[in-house]
Amino acid sequence: MTESNTRVVALAGGVGGAKMAQGLARVVPGDALTVIGNTADDFWHHGLRICPDLDTVMYTLAGIANPATGWGIANDTHHTLDALTRYGEAPWFQVGDQDFATHILRSARLRADHSLTHVTAALAAALGVTARLLPMTDDEVATRVLTPTSELDFQEYFVARRQMDDVIGISFAGIDQACPTPEVLAAIAEAVAIVICPSNPIVSIGPILAVPGLRDALAAATAPVVAISPIVGGRALKGPADRMLATLGHEVSALGVARILSGLVEVFVLDEADADLAAAVAALGMRPVVTRTVMGDATDRARLASESLNALGALGAPV
Amino acid sequence: MTESNTRVVALAGGVGGAKMAQGLARVVPGDALTVIGNTADDFWHHGLRICPDLDTVMYTLAGIANPATGWGIANDTHHTLDALTRYGEAPWFQVGDQDFATHILRSARLRADHSLTHVTAALAAALGVTARLLPMTDDEVATRVLTPTSELDFQEYFVARRQMDDVIGISFAGIDQACPTPEVLAAIAEAVAIVICPSNPIVSIGPILAVPGLRDALAAATAPVVAISPIVGGRALKGPADRMLATLGHEVSALGVARILSGLVEVFVLDEADADLAAAVAALGMRPVVTRTVMGDATDRARLASESLNALGALGAPV
Repeated sequence: MTESNTRVVALAGGVGGAKMAQGLARVVPGDALTVIGNTADDFWHHGLRICPDLDTVMYTLAGIANPATGWGIANDTHHTLDALTRYGEAPWFQVGDQDFATHILRSARLRADHSLTHVTAALAAALGVTARLLPMTDDEVATRVLTPTSELDFQEYFVARRQMDDVIGISFAGIDQACPTPEVLAAIAEAVAIVICPSNPIVSIGPILAVPGLRDALAAATAPVVAISPIVGGRALKGPADRMLATLGHEVSALGVARILSGLVEVFVLDEADADLAAAVAALGMRPVVTRTVMGDATDRARLASESLNALGALGAPV
Repeated sequence: MTESNTRVVALAGGVGGAKMAQGLARVVPGDALTVIGNTADDFWHHGLRICPDLDTVMYTLAGIANPATGWGIANDTHHTLDALTRYGEAPWFQVGDQDFATHILRSARLRADHSLTHVTAALAAALGVTARLLPMTDDEVATRVLTPTSELDFQEYFVARRQMDDVIGISFAGIDQACPTPEVLAAIAEAVAIVICPSNPIVSIGPILAVPGLRDALAAATAPVVAISPIVGGRALKGPADRMLATLGHEVSALGVARILSGLVEVFVLDEADADLAAAVAALGMRPVVTRTVMGDATDRARLASESLNALGALGAPV
């Protein structure tokens, strides 16, 4: 197969998206893989622009992600954070010393009017990542979390308050003014397969699809779309997706996720634990594929990536 | 003695100034010591505001300075710098991980419209520094170094090119628009003794005296001024002051320094090695004091501070 007919686009959030992206990078050659990352989690902290989801994907693809957490850099130290704490700063957001370099450099370049797309490409290339990593937009978007008592910045909800609050509403500040980048639109138009990674459908995939024009671009794409459920046996593999689905009125199951993505997805991958939901997924107009979706090591991630792509029939032959 | 009659102001550059400031802090109670630091070495690097001289004084007064270098923090690590290098950045300016915290926090607060005076006070207080540390100005000033072949930013000359160039001219960009802060002017007006630390007279003390109004404030102050020579036996104790004096047409000796400060200083402290210059210093209208000026440990620094202050007779009695 040639590169031109294996162009794969993946929409990814954080840890789950990064694992899937790593699997795809194992079965799709070189820069034929484009990962479009969620940037609605991004925030300014200590005057630095932090992009948690992009960085998680970048570090994972570079093979330097912390295996214990899924985010951050393996064996990173925390001397800068400790020194910030000595200055009286609350260390609620863990940034390692090597990780700080990413934020320092990104922030300096953003302030020098480089686009986030450009900065991300340079950082990823320096780390040896061959896949293309694209932010969903170069504009600042900020997820806001409505709880019964207040509205929180996403990282305040997610990290500082450890997702303890019931989420009764989600909004993406700045989304109406955000534009998908030319790189994102071109990648979607040129793709032969599009993968929606097993990321939180509300706050990871949700913002990507909410960028004006992006959902239309996906609908207009010639490539079929496969989504992998981040909910297995009624539970999120990681993070608060299950509770969030519940408090926002969705069914807490792979079927609930399928309903959210209905109209956009041709193939929906469910875990073996959810085989009983396959018929209901099919009734939504998607082809259900049942397999093991809980990703272990890199080989396992590659297997799931391969099965997902093969289910699309997009690669012509098993990879 | 009460605090109100022991108010001491010191003008300081980097390592030499920091050692003297530490000595003064040993013999002057609590916040009766105000150190006015040179900020013309400050620069933006990786989008962060770095203030080498202020930080050297701050870390020294906090007791956390790296004893091997005089600057930076003791036992600091360099993981952030290494990671920046991995991203392709040239690591010509050494910043430790803990040191980065200082620059990150300062930069964030400056961008949030805090003054450098305010930021510096907060950082120093958090490190337990009881002396007041004041930047000479809140405005950005940048030392420029003219060489036979080009004009260099100060840190390019000083760090990147290791002071290898002959200096044939010095200018302070922005100095005409810079204002001394109200805190600096008040400290000078209220002082009972003013100390010009053994720092480079051209690029450390020079910029402080060049802040519009600052030299006049010193001249108008009721407090007498004592200066300690940074040149001993015709050599700079640290840094390029000796070569710089030569290429700028000054005599490379304590007497050459005394001439530069003449009209501003009542007492001039020379090293025993330069006792033969005492008469010539006296002829400039300053009272020469000959003692050991090469500072060793903290006790030695306190001795020199005490002798310098006593020479002014400002403290009434030996400290």
